[in-house]
Amino acid sequence: MGILIKNTLAILPAKDGHDVDRHDLYIEGSTIAGIDEAPAGFVATEVIDGTRRLTIPGLINAHTHTYMSMMRNVADDLSFTDWLFGTVEPIEDRLEPEDAYWASLLGQIEMIHSGTTCFNDMQMHIGQTTRAVRESGMRAVICRGLVGSDYDRSDYRLAEALQERDDFADCSRLTFRLGPHAPYSCSPNYLRMVADVARELGMGIHIHIAEGQVESDNMRADHHCTPVEYVRDAGIFETPTIAAHCIRVDENDRAILAANHVSVVTNPASNMKLGNGFAPVPELVAAGVNVCLGTDGAASNNAQNMFREMSLLALIHKGTHDTPQCISADEVLDMATINGARALGLPTGSIEVGRKADLALLDLDAPSLTPLNNPVAALAYSVNGSEVTDVIIDGRAVLRNRELLTIDEERVRHEITRICQRLGLA
Amino acid sequence: MGILIKNTLAILPAKDGHDVDRHDLYIEGSTIAGIDEAPAGFVATEVIDGTRRLTIPGLINAHTHTYMSMMRNVADDLSFTDWLFGTVEPIEDRLEPEDAYWASLLGQIEMIHSGTTCFNDMQMHIGQTTRAVRESGMRAVICRGLVGSDYDRSDYRLAEALQERDDFADCSRLTFRLGPHAPYSCSPNYLRMVADVARELGMGIHIHIAEGQVESDNMRADHHCTPVEYVRDAGIFETPTIAAHCIRVDENDRAILAANHVSVVTNPASNMKLGNGFAPVPELVAAGVNVCLGTDGAASNNAQNMFREMSLLALIHKGTHDTPQCISADEVLDMATINGARALGLPTGSIEVGRKADLALLDLDAPSLTPLNNPVAALAYSVNGSEVTDVIIDGRAVLRNRELLTIDEERVRHEITRICQRLGLA
Repeated sequence: MGILIKNTLAILPAKDGHDVDRHDLYIEGSTIAGIDEAPAGFVATEVIDGTRRLTIPGLINAHTHTYMSMMRNVADDLSFTDWLFGTVEPIEDRLEPEDAYWASLLGQIEMIHSGTTCFNDMQMHIGQTTRAVRESGMRAVICRGLVGSDYDRSDYRLAEALQERDDFADCSRLTFRLGPHAPYSCSPNYLRMVADVARELGMGIHIHIAEGQVESDNMRADHHCTPVEYVRDAGIFETPTIAAHCIRVDENDRAILAANHVSVVTNPASNMKLGNGFAPVPELVAAGVNVCLGTDGAASNNAQNMFREMSLLALIHKGTHDTPQCISADEVLDMATINGARALGLPTGSIEVGRKADLALLDLDAPSLTPLNNPVAALAYSVNGSEVTDVIIDGRAVLRNRELLTIDEERVRHEITRICQRLGLA
Repeated sequence: MGILIKNTLAILPAKDGHDVDRHDLYIEGSTIAGIDEAPAGFVATEVIDGTRRLTIPGLINAHTHTYMSMMRNVADDLSFTDWLFGTVEPIEDRLEPEDAYWASLLGQIEMIHSGTTCFNDMQMHIGQTTRAVRESGMRAVICRGLVGSDYDRSDYRLAEALQERDDFADCSRLTFRLGPHAPYSCSPNYLRMVADVARELGMGIHIHIAEGQVESDNMRADHHCTPVEYVRDAGIFETPTIAAHCIRVDENDRAILAANHVSVVTNPASNMKLGNGFAPVPELVAAGVNVCLGTDGAASNNAQNMFREMSLLALIHKGTHDTPQCISADEVLDMATINGARALGLPTGSIEVGRKADLALLDLDAPSLTPLNNPVAALAYSVNGSEVTDVIIDGRAVLRNRELLTIDEERVRHEITRICQRLGLA
């Protein structure tokens, strides 16, 4: 039982960047089982003609909040304070748990159509994003957002996080991390408790760090340190950590992140949209930090399209640094794929035998891929996501000829419209 | 004979931003002849069901070079010097005239599919972009690029520009401007000659100004002025002028641009990609300058997708100014539509009775438009261009249900591949 993608142009990892060439890709079970050579006893139950397709590793959205997808375009052109406290939080307070299920499905629809196969989600409604992932066929890392002030192992949010991990242990596409929200919403004692639990259970951490100037200013005033130092001192970095944003990180902070093997997720659209500026991505890379890429939630992006994020990542630092050479298309593709896999500890993110079969196929006849002078550059600079025709996740076709096989899109649109009407948004 | 778009959600101009509501749009000849009220004697030869469509003014790409479309993704992550002199110009030297025709068609395919109905093109191959426009059905402003050092009215480039204007006088969708290339490639005397001819013939001007720091530094060293002052002093601004880039423009330059009613085209992707930085768009707007939006050519973008450009425009200045309030979604939409029409002196760019029927229809069932909490914000922040299903230009359907009615896309792909192989690019 397997899928054969025949004669496809494919982007494979190479020592210096990527190799782009024609290959036959053999998928068996959830895994890439052969490249140009069928594994023993391989029987193709599905053959995909790859002649006019470019096959790439599925994109990894390393930081988002899919439960916010119904808040798309409700809080734009606002200051961070008006955005968070004036608009987003009041809506969040009125969400019913099942709203998060439908919103997560909506976000996943957009992600799958634009070639994303895996996402790292910080959420707050037990069982909702997880249920949506079980149905959609995506791969996901689920992190219940945690906030608190005491060293309190009986915190109900932590209990929910661990409960959800148990409840969905049967779904191999799901993994779980602990999600202490941010330095400004978690005390040192609370962070210490989370760090201890994570270490004991062998769980990774997902946290926001240094998103805005106010956070850094308050941290300096109240604790005489940077947000990075605050989180490190609470022991968080003793367990594998993926940190979103890291915009206000100075040279010392960057050295701390590198020394502690913290992966950083940059979120260009969200950071600009909320007026938080530009993360020092070239400097983080130079310091040796593993940088990956995310969209953040739809309330601050407002898309869940990683190709848009890749083009932003490729462009903005050339603008802020006045040089086109500070980040390459090859680096951008890695940040959107293998670096995310590394950050999340998942055996995906590249087309190699033994890796998970998480793949996106793009239509080579699309204008944005014509002419095909440089396929990797095309992914960073000219593709917009609509070129994706087929998506395979964990060895299973979830998008075929642009048709989503796992989610009833019309139903999701209907439910989202109903939810937005109830919330007074639409 | 006319087209009726029935019951469509449509974005109309309003005193403060835009009105979004359901309307019936009546198109007669090349013009929007009625909104909600059929013009006398109207007979619909085509009725488009607008129930699940958002109708917007067709986007206006106010600065590009479509003849460069075959150079997509051939010169990335290079310094401006290596890009222009090391890669782009050597390719340009080997272009045959007809290459420009096919490349322009390719650029137009991408523009039409992503909702652009009009573009302002600086080119160098007489009769090629024009021929492509005649066939594609697009609206275009054609500007033969001019460079020179003497006050020489017999310059062959100028002769070509005027010849082309005569040759294509029959096509009402084409207008012509003179295109002195840039301050660094035109002497004051040459600019003065172009300004005189433009004034005598009642033609507008299209020029690049202040794209890079080197240009400003050299101008200061050689002529003791800014690029804006140099162009003004040569008399160019005495005729309606649209100026591309204007990145290095100080407060005095911005006042000069405003006082002389010069429209500025900002090109965010190209400016970042070549390491030229960010145009001071909020400051230009504050000075009273009419700012519009363009993609620039595919060698420096690398797309011809105005929706991607809109999202960049909406986001980057929020990043550089550390505030989400320096540019709004309403302003972005105007810059991509009516401001471009104003800059080019064309009666298009908004849905109003009497304006040209240049329209794009978007699929309201697309995930990026779900939920539809704020349609104008969606255009700036979540749409990527693939939502466009139908495009009408000059009252004629050129894209219907995503099928291009005017251009043989497969033939264009074939010819472009052949050209790129000859040039050694693919």
